[in-house]
Amino acid sequence: MPGAIITLTTDFGNGSPYIAAMKGAILSVNSEATIIDLTHSVPPQNVRQGAISLVTAVPDFPEGTIHVVVVDPGVGTDRFLLCVTIGGCYYLAPDNGLLDGLARRNNPDKIIALTESGYWLAKVSDTFHGRDILAPVAAHLSLGVRAELLGDPLSTMKQLSWPEVHVMPGKIEGVIESVDSFGNLVSNIEDEMLGDVPRDDSVRIVCDEHETQGIYRTYGDHPALTLIALVGSGRKLELAIVDDSAALMLGVGTGAKLSVLW
Amino acid sequence: MPGAIITLTTDFGNGSPYIAAMKGAILSVNSEATIIDLTHSVPPQNVRQGAISLVTAVPDFPEGTIHVVVVDPGVGTDRFLLCVTIGGCYYLAPDNGLLDGLARRNNPDKIIALTESGYWLAKVSDTFHGRDILAPVAAHLSLGVRAELLGDPLSTMKQLSWPEVHVMPGKIEGVIESVDSFGNLVSNIEDEMLGDVPRDDSVRIVCDEHETQGIYRTYGDHPALTLIALVGSGRKLELAIVDDSAALMLGVGTGAKLSVLW
Amino acid sequence: MPGAIITLTTDFGNGSPYIAAMKGAILSVNSEATIIDLTHSVPPQNVRQGAISLVTAVPDFPEGTIHVVVVDPGVGTDRFLLCVTIGGCYYLAPDNGLLDGLARRNNPDKIIALTESGYWLAKVSDTFHGRDILAPVAAHLSLGVRAELLGDPLSTMKQLSWPEVHVMPGKIEGVIESVDSFGNLVSNIEDEMLGDVPRDDSVRIVCDEHETQGIYRTYGDHPALTLIALVGSGRKLELAIVDDSAALMLGVGTGAKLSVLW
Repeated sequence: MPGAIITLTTDFGNGSPYIAAMKGAILSVNSEATIIDLTHSVPPQNVRQGAISLVTAVPDFPEGTIHVVVVDPGVGTDRFLLCVTIGGCYYLAPDNGLLDGLARRNNPDKIIALTESGYWLAKVSDTFHGRDILAPVAAHLSLGVRAELLGDPLSTMKQLSWPEVHVMPGKIEGVIESVDSFGNLVSNIEDEMLGDVPRDDSVRIVCDEHETQGIYRTYGDHPALTLIALVGSGRKLELAIVDDSAALMLGVGTGAKLSVLW
Repeated sequence: MPGAIITLTTDFGNGSPYIAAMKGAILSVNSEATIIDLTHSVPPQNVRQGAISLVTAVPDFPEGTIHVVVVDPGVGTDRFLLCVTIGGCYYLAPDNGLLDGLARRNNPDKIIALTESGYWLAKVSDTFHGRDILAPVAAHLSLGVRAELLGDPLSTMKQLSWPEVHVMPGKIEGVIESVDSFGNLVSNIEDEMLGDVPRDDSVRIVCDEHETQGIYRTYGDHPALTLIALVGSGRKLELAIVDDSAALMLGVGTGAKLSVLW
Repeated sequence: MPGAIITLTTDFGNGSPYIAAMKGAILSVNSEATIIDLTHSVPPQNVRQGAISLVTAVPDFPEGTIHVVVVDPGVGTDRFLLCVTIGGCYYLAPDNGLLDGLARRNNPDKIIALTESGYWLAKVSDTFHGRDILAPVAAHLSLGVRAELLGDPLSTMKQLSWPEVHVMPGKIEGVIESVDSFGNLVSNIEDEMLGDVPRDDSVRIVCDEHETQGIYRTYGDHPALTLIALVGSGRKLELAIVDDSAALMLGVGTGAKLSVLW
């Protein structure tokens, strides 16, 4: 698998030379790996947003992809680093909840604690295990090393507590989970939870003091500056302002309550 | 053509996981495609700036390159998605004017409306045709599928209205068309329109209340903070402040009038 | 070497279409080159920060990597463009000090002034030698062209003046050299200069009016918002605020004095 796909998700920020350092460490082991940036815009040390970014982007990658995830406030402490297989792909990440969003959708097949230092850089720093451990381990995996050889099996990994969605007769309550680059407010209410909900004007969507009626198919059916609700690209209910930023115009952000009433 | 080149131009913003989702969709069809980010910094839903970014960067790519362009405020409405061949390269984009800057320089050879859903993802959302249609179509093209098979031929595509350049005896009038990352003010006056214009101090360049004399070869011939006019990397007349941002220091942006007088 | 690795370091800013133009120029010569963004976030025309970014990221790349560096305020003037071999890698950059940080760690083996225009684009602009000269030269190098053929040997290249570190009995004085994307304040005091320094609370680290005790191994051993000193990923002494930005919280930036006292 010399041309295997390795993605990188970090909180380093676009343009950080540490991203390139990880790529160099990968290419030093497998110069033919295909490296793709998943995102480097996870807010610093925000494990939850890292977990949400993964849920958004990894379903589109082919089986066998190796996803490396570095949001690691505990670097250098005694937390484990993991190799987890979920749905035919590999995930390399610290054991801090980063993979919990994925694991709630699809049970992990295997969890390995990375302990075999033979697959690491010769000299491991205390502050950058993404470069010194995860990058070379990803490269060895991409060359065909079996996950079992990387360390010891674990039975569980760290979980996060997630705000729940309450589905009631005539009412669903959730929260805004993330804000995308267009300023759309993406909730934790998934498409399949909306099974009973009418899509016409008899449904009200309420977020703080803002309210709109109907759940629509797309952005372009409405005049500019209209507040609309729709099921977005990640198959979650979201609030959008046509041709503008709902986050800025409504002054609403992550954590706000969203109710669907009918 | 397993290693064919596919570029991506979007308004998703650097770091958006939706960029990665498109790359995953491409690599799921052709895992050996070479994917290059052209830019993801087109202002949200700004079709004109998307068209200008393409004109700046595509001439340097080799024949056969497949350029995917997603600035798509009308996603989910009944606008067409296109495959257009211009100058030996392929362009996949919504029919909203994104390709009009290129088409004015070089007539399209072929315009195809994408209608053959066999080349799309199995499940197409209403909000993200970049991932669900354009990305897999690009990947199939990169594997050698002929453009004719992707859909039905069209005779025209959508045009934008562009500010004109007025070339008169002793005077050329244009506008600032874009601001680059150095703050240079790039106009719509192209190098070849300057044929009759002297390059020495007898020519005046006027933009709002700002004025400079002469059209120079390069930035480095002048002291820091000097306002100069020169023909920039995209072969258009631009205003620059040596070692600083003309946009910030002059308070001038896109749309401002620029006159050349001699 | 069709799959050779070429990295790009520029001050163009993330999202600049000029980055893509350079990639297109490379792929037009060697369509199989692996192109990696080292960073495009060097502050505009800041040669010193460009030199520091290189020192941070290039050690992790494999032998034979070709690093292209474009921070070029003197483009179009009579400064040389160089191909320099240092430690088994190639560096293509203007002769303005960009490579001086690397050269102080590892003597250059060979310095060539790029004069053989046969390896350049047919038409060279006055404002963008990164695209018109360095990119195609990098691509030819990646195809196996020997550095000697690119131009004429030079015996020296431009140096920068660097703030010195003063190592005294009981005291080391340096400066903050860069701020990373987490807001950590990275100094020019390298790990090996700290040989005699105790790591326990008997050592004081002072920066402006701020002070902390001890040099620690990692971030995670301390409560949030603690100011700590540690040796970071680039093997230099740095000041960090646990889970926050030291640069913002202390109001300290590049150039501030840092003292280690014991």
